[in-house]
Amino acid sequence: MNNFDFYNPTQITFGKDRMGELAHLVPAAAKVLILVGGSSAEKNGTLAQVREALGQRTHSTFSGIEPNPSFETSMKAVQMVREQGFDYLLAVGGGSVIDATKFIAAAVLFKGDAWDILLQFGGNITEAMPFGVVLTLPATGSEMNNGSVITRQELGAKLPFRNNHVFPKFAILDPTKTYTLPAKQLANGVVDAFVHIVEQYLTYPVNGSVQDRFAEGLLQTLIEIGPRLLTATEPNYDDRANLVWSATLALNGLIGAGVPEDWATHLIGHELTAKYNIDHARTLAVVLPSMLHERRVQKHAKLLQYGQRVWGIQTGSDEERITAAIEATRDFFERMGLPTRLSAYGLGNEAIDLVVAQLQAHGMTQLGEHSDVTPEVSRRVLVGAL
Amino acid sequence: MNNFDFYNPTQITFGKDRMGELAHLVPAAAKVLILVGGSSAEKNGTLAQVREALGQRTHSTFSGIEPNPSFETSMKAVQMVREQGFDYLLAVGGGSVIDATKFIAAAVLFKGDAWDILLQFGGNITEAMPFGVVLTLPATGSEMNNGSVITRQELGAKLPFRNNHVFPKFAILDPTKTYTLPAKQLANGVVDAFVHIVEQYLTYPVNGSVQDRFAEGLLQTLIEIGPRLLTATEPNYDDRANLVWSATLALNGLIGAGVPEDWATHLIGHELTAKYNIDHARTLAVVLPSMLHERRVQKHAKLLQYGQRVWGIQTGSDEERITAAIEATRDFFERMGLPTRLSAYGLGNEAIDLVVAQLQAHGMTQLGEHSDVTPEVSRRVLVGAL
Repeated sequence: MNNFDFYNPTQITFGKDRMGELAHLVPAAAKVLILVGGSSAEKNGTLAQVREALGQRTHSTFSGIEPNPSFETSMKAVQMVREQGFDYLLAVGGGSVIDATKFIAAAVLFKGDAWDILLQFGGNITEAMPFGVVLTLPATGSEMNNGSVITRQELGAKLPFRNNHVFPKFAILDPTKTYTLPAKQLANGVVDAFVHIVEQYLTYPVNGSVQDRFAEGLLQTLIEIGPRLLTATEPNYDDRANLVWSATLALNGLIGAGVPEDWATHLIGHELTAKYNIDHARTLAVVLPSMLHERRVQKHAKLLQYGQRVWGIQTGSDEERITAAIEATRDFFERMGLPTRLSAYGLGNEAIDLVVAQLQAHGMTQLGEHSDVTPEVSRRVLVGAL
Repeated sequence: MNNFDFYNPTQITFGKDRMGELAHLVPAAAKVLILVGGSSAEKNGTLAQVREALGQRTHSTFSGIEPNPSFETSMKAVQMVREQGFDYLLAVGGGSVIDATKFIAAAVLFKGDAWDILLQFGGNITEAMPFGVVLTLPATGSEMNNGSVITRQELGAKLPFRNNHVFPKFAILDPTKTYTLPAKQLANGVVDAFVHIVEQYLTYPVNGSVQDRFAEGLLQTLIEIGPRLLTATEPNYDDRANLVWSATLALNGLIGAGVPEDWATHLIGHELTAKYNIDHARTLAVVLPSMLHERRVQKHAKLLQYGQRVWGIQTGSDEERITAAIEATRDFFERMGLPTRLSAYGLGNEAIDLVVAQLQAHGMTQLGEHSDVTPEVSRRVLVGAL
């Protein structure tokens, strides 16, 4: 097992009918800026519950944070916070709103050009505004971690940052908030969480027994509940609760502590999103199966373990079992309604040239747990995903 | 899944050669009281490393915290802190030293008689001194939770308390610190962690898929590494690391969040320790198999799941599989060198009368996840353990 540091101070308030806890979780004297994406939180009554729970606190709402939240939109919120003197932020939404809120929390107090935060991946953040989360869309795990991804639209750049100052103070996770989500967003959430886990698990063995078992348990849970989420005629509370808690634990730092991590699939996927506006989870569904095929030698031992423990693949030669494990993964994504081929999005070789060029432009030339995913390897992965 | 709150702000610093991190983890201006048990931390060089890492900070050492740490000894440390003005505590040891440090941290600042902390199970704690941990003996999980158990020797009472003010600020977990432990302490650690997990897992199903998978993964890890720890001629780093991390995660609040908990085995075990000074883990090895037999109806579904997923028991009638799962558990404890019968400690019916009387005296009359473990049930459990 590798040495590691683990720290996660976010307070989780999980379950039905927990919105009233906002009254205790947000400081009584706070002047609160609520941040939302589109109009769904207003329409489905979540914002009304939030405002009621905030009681006498002064609050306003900033709406319009887009999927793949932008630097440009975030800076408008930064300006609003500065001008109107808010001292607490409350993200009401999914990963995009939370990621933007993290950036805003840091940017408001940042000395200098806030874009530098992203150029230095957050290492230059020394303070941030306090903020909480009301989660409405499980997927990214942003509600219980210190990471965020921001897109600068004018540059077509999607860059991650992380810093312990941007852990949410709290996150309210109410599984019933997922009841109004369209099937596509549920499916995206399952696949996003699934690939988060894979990025921290399907590398090479370091005898991290606990980390492996936890990762496998989360994957098994998602495989079990995923298809049911799509076919259920009425939402099942426990399935929704397990989805929410799996997605949170998939990326709260726990299963990655002490083991190698990959993230090449994500970084290639980011470029596909930045260039072609494909949903984040959908880029992962396209890239991952091909990535696993391409790197089956480096990932040999863990692919066998994955096949056996997660998919119950016990027979055949090593190579047959590895192929079966990868194809089971592809089949799962397809069953969740996510295509696993670039051609499903009308993309061909020209797109591959562009994505590889963008990877090079962004310095993404040594990806993966062995730093051996060069642009040439990324190209082969994308060709394999045609 | 049940509603839950999860909060755990302890910073974990895990791995080899991490002691130097103390220089950053302890505030530079702190006046530190180091707390230890016997002489092992001095003899094996751990205290020398700690003192070196503390550098120029003023520090003293309080030694003599006993297994099943006492109120009486803890109050001597409280007096020393007050008289000499320490403002930071550093526990160097295992669960006993950490538990005592938590109590001392709260008692120093407590208004009134500190025994009231235990009479109210910690609910009356409003502040505590900051403290860190250097773990030398994995078992109790105290290094990453807000709980503690203190014994008042003059009353023969062993009482638990918990409060969010007594989370350690940090815990340094260096698996090589376990290399000098005798086999008996390693075995106790494995069984203690194992039963912590069982208390949060073997209850009744609430569809907490993630919690179940995590609990099963920890149990599988302990079953895998436990016997190897006893037979290895040289310490294996990864086995030690997995032991340490399993024991920490067994009781840091995660696997119990959102599911029913039992703890009847622990509470009966506490009385055996208080009366007969049997090691904590050894009382659990005696009580648990009989407890599972006694409550096999209430625990039916989870015992079947446990048998199948943890022990691979697939065949036979439900009752046969449940019996096999319980006997596999008993066999595991015996293989770890922990007896599973009261008679191994020379205890008979007279002891049972005394323990049941103590349970009643301490109000332990409705234990377990259904509150149906009355003194009469506890008696049957103990009779079954003769």
